[in-house]
Amino acid sequence: MNASVKKGEVVTLIDEQFKKYLVNVSGTTDKYKGIGVFDPASLVGKTYGSRIEIGNKQFWLLTPSLQDKLQGLKRRAQIILPRDAAQIIMHCSIESGHRVLEAGIGSGSLTIALATAVAPTGKVISYDNREDFIAHALTNLQIANLASYVITKHQDVTEGIDEKNLDAIILDIPNPWEAVTHVWNVLKPGGYFCSYSPLTSQVEQTVAAVQQHPFIEVMTLENIQREMVVSSHGMRPKFDMLGHTGYLTFARKVL
Amino acid sequence: MNASVKKGEVVTLIDEQFKKYLVNVSGTTDKYKGIGVFDPASLVGKTYGSRIEIGNKQFWLLTPSLQDKLQGLKRRAQIILPRDAAQIIMHCSIESGHRVLEAGIGSGSLTIALATAVAPTGKVISYDNREDFIAHALTNLQIANLASYVITKHQDVTEGIDEKNLDAIILDIPNPWEAVTHVWNVLKPGGYFCSYSPLTSQVEQTVAAVQQHPFIEVMTLENIQREMVVSSHGMRPKFDMLGHTGYLTFARKVL
Amino acid sequence: MNASVKKGEVVTLIDEQFKKYLVNVSGTTDKYKGIGVFDPASLVGKTYGSRIEIGNKQFWLLTPSLQDKLQGLKRRAQIILPRDAAQIIMHCSIESGHRVLEAGIGSGSLTIALATAVAPTGKVISYDNREDFIAHALTNLQIANLASYVITKHQDVTEGIDEKNLDAIILDIPNPWEAVTHVWNVLKPGGYFCSYSPLTSQVEQTVAAVQQHPFIEVMTLENIQREMVVSSHGMRPKFDMLGHTGYLTFARKVL
Amino acid sequence: MNASVKKGEVVTLIDEQFKKYLVNVSGTTDKYKGIGVFDPASLVGKTYGSRIEIGNKQFWLLTPSLQDKLQGLKRRAQIILPRDAAQIIMHCSIESGHRVLEAGIGSGSLTIALATAVAPTGKVISYDNREDFIAHALTNLQIANLASYVITKHQDVTEGIDEKNLDAIILDIPNPWEAVTHVWNVLKPGGYFCSYSPLTSQVEQTVAAVQQHPFIEVMTLENIQREMVVSSHGMRPKFDMLGHTGYLTFARKVL
Repeated sequence: MNASVKKGEVVTLIDEQFKKYLVNVSGTTDKYKGIGVFDPASLVGKTYGSRIEIGNKQFWLLTPSLQDKLQGLKRRAQIILPRDAAQIIMHCSIESGHRVLEAGIGSGSLTIALATAVAPTGKVISYDNREDFIAHALTNLQIANLASYVITKHQDVTEGIDEKNLDAIILDIPNPWEAVTHVWNVLKPGGYFCSYSPLTSQVEQTVAAVQQHPFIEVMTLENIQREMVVSSHGMRPKFDMLGHTGYLTFARKVL
Repeated sequence: MNASVKKGEVVTLIDEQFKKYLVNVSGTTDKYKGIGVFDPASLVGKTYGSRIEIGNKQFWLLTPSLQDKLQGLKRRAQIILPRDAAQIIMHCSIESGHRVLEAGIGSGSLTIALATAVAPTGKVISYDNREDFIAHALTNLQIANLASYVITKHQDVTEGIDEKNLDAIILDIPNPWEAVTHVWNVLKPGGYFCSYSPLTSQVEQTVAAVQQHPFIEVMTLENIQREMVVSSHGMRPKFDMLGHTGYLTFARKVL
Repeated sequence: MNASVKKGEVVTLIDEQFKKYLVNVSGTTDKYKGIGVFDPASLVGKTYGSRIEIGNKQFWLLTPSLQDKLQGLKRRAQIILPRDAAQIIMHCSIESGHRVLEAGIGSGSLTIALATAVAPTGKVISYDNREDFIAHALTNLQIANLASYVITKHQDVTEGIDEKNLDAIILDIPNPWEAVTHVWNVLKPGGYFCSYSPLTSQVEQTVAAVQQHPFIEVMTLENIQREMVVSSHGMRPKFDMLGHTGYLTFARKVL
Repeated sequence: MNASVKKGEVVTLIDEQFKKYLVNVSGTTDKYKGIGVFDPASLVGKTYGSRIEIGNKQFWLLTPSLQDKLQGLKRRAQIILPRDAAQIIMHCSIESGHRVLEAGIGSGSLTIALATAVAPTGKVISYDNREDFIAHALTNLQIANLASYVITKHQDVTEGIDEKNLDAIILDIPNPWEAVTHVWNVLKPGGYFCSYSPLTSQVEQTVAAVQQHPFIEVMTLENIQREMVVSSHGMRPKFDMLGHTGYLTFARKVL
């Protein structure tokens, strides 16, 4: 027997254009963007995986997955895409129980991916020098039910890091090289540093700063994703493609 | 004060060519490939992050990270590389507590990445129709200290799947399309299917099989990684590049 | 002293958005798309390379280059882009004096590139089974001043080729494999065959057909172009990218 | 009836590993690298396109194509590959009759491609500040039967260019930005400049220099080629791939 929606849960609704909406079924009757006016409580008791009708639109009803949380996110700043978040988590060896720092928080996209990776026993500490970004990201984290794994700080990471003995530090800021000394100081031995930057000049300055400290496994990657169109007539890469996201620079602290 | 090696631990040794060796410090004096003759117990008490000398070679001494476990792996079959494992875990939304099935186990490379992602409360169930692969992968899982998260089965996944209500199923077999009906039957609603195949013909047959069942978010990706060479003279993509690993086909079960 | 526009010439006008227009200065006063109402004869005597004003728009005035002819082309069907035309010409070793067959003519884009490569002593023979495409392409060839190097035929290349001893044959048709026997028959020994196809299934069928005949140097390529954004702040690949054009399959006839 | 080898011709021999050798049939009996001891005159009268035996090795006998000339080249310096030469010729709109300058000459690889493109009525002027490179490249040009289209100069292009009114200028030197002023001075209006550089820092400096002069259509490209492995079991990109050649920066002179 398949599970059904219970009071207090957050659900994913996916429409016929595969647009995703995260909805808390405890919410009140209101106009929901992309869905229309409806009472979220009416979803209680419906079967997960089934197709339901709201107004005259069809939706798939699902338990929110990490992908749903990332794709259903309300964006404000430019985000780190799931494809890059995946490489960051893998390359920095982030796992359950780790204490990981990121800066800045942006819209909370990478934060959601990191919080999922360190749960249930780890923590993400997230610095941003803009309070409005922190507030916006926290809203996204709450709907994703991940806020309890995240500590936010209204602080500029280039001015210092309070925490010690961190497993990994991820920077998505315009001037990562200015934080590299702090990064080395507060990483645990063997801990990983990653910087995400769109421009080659940012990479060059960051690598130069990294080389001033005892880091090994210094490496810069670019991660490219091609989607394939597959039909009964054959397959081909999609014509429409995102040509660049950012360069990922990695390093690992030693003594 | 930095942590030091304790009895019973497994450590990473990284040599000057950045080759990695996982060593159990409870092991006996022996000839270790790439290291030479030495007594692992002599590492007890050394500081993690420091550089040590064994024979006349220098090594970094570190706590094994996921990357170390993957790069230190003893290979037998062709492996799924960390870059693709990362996309699989992210795209299939695999997280702590999930029950995930993979087939085949190969050398246990993807198994290690999946086990790390579902720990400490989830499980990886791994099918392979070759007992020698299972035995070899288990050795790799034990040295990585992840065997307790993995259940292995000497079974052909195209002939049926015993488990039910799985969060995700990942196939790296020559004929994934023959398992798609079983996959749909045992995934939980909203659960993810992924198939990894080097050839376009495998993708076409798998997508055709997927389209016979209620799956949404069907998508095929190719994941390309370019390493950049960064120096004080400027940067450029590396000349030497891996041109292809495999196509990743994803789908998500609905009712 | 720089050259100036003479009666009877065709010129390139490039506007501030870098859109290109090929204009015959013998034309009559009319409304020209993208330019406005003007008298082309007013361009006679102006200096090539200078900036001129027509109405209230600014244009660079230039002698038409091959790029101008290709970018100023009026499109009707999907075209083979200059990036792929370049590889075709190089890989098929097409040069001045060669006799080259192409099918179909489409909008005449590849035809323009081929005609330029074989001029002044060679010929392009162009087959298409749609008369409207031939008529449209001929208009483009005339404005590019290349029509004298091209012979068009309203004929289906899969039903046979009249010419003999050709230096190269390029196919951009949905079913290239059906013409492969004719191709082998009429190529000179050492002559090159190229097929341009977007789908993997087309490539597979074409290669299978090629392998039925004495061809060597059989090879399939995909040609990817990334544009870089370069500024004083650094550089990066452009976000917007064309993900795929087509696969190029090459083969060379032997006896 | 197929053509046969005549006295005085240069032929291509292709062995079973598809390695290519250009041989002048007027040569004397000698040991030829990759072929063995043989008398080139023995090839006279053999049919082009046929398979012949020399010693106990099999060779295809062909008229040298541009690809043969490029692949049969004796290399000394790093060369510009045909894939990039193709883009340069197309993007710079080089055609029969043009006068084109390149620097440096290297092993003469780009020179061969350019000479073929400007023949029979154009000229390539090639500067290099190393006499040994010029001598080596001339040997390659002679065997390719293209030396008559090329004028070489033992001269540093950053110190000045003697020619005027050039159709295109291509630089493959470590410091292209130091020649940009000379380039602008001697290009004809509408003429093209191209610089080939492996490093991002070279691109940045070159673009900065270009922006000091009246150039339009300034653009930097990277050209990536993937070879596909096609068999009756399906197709896939080749695992082994050249990850980078160089960045191509283009610009076009206006007044």
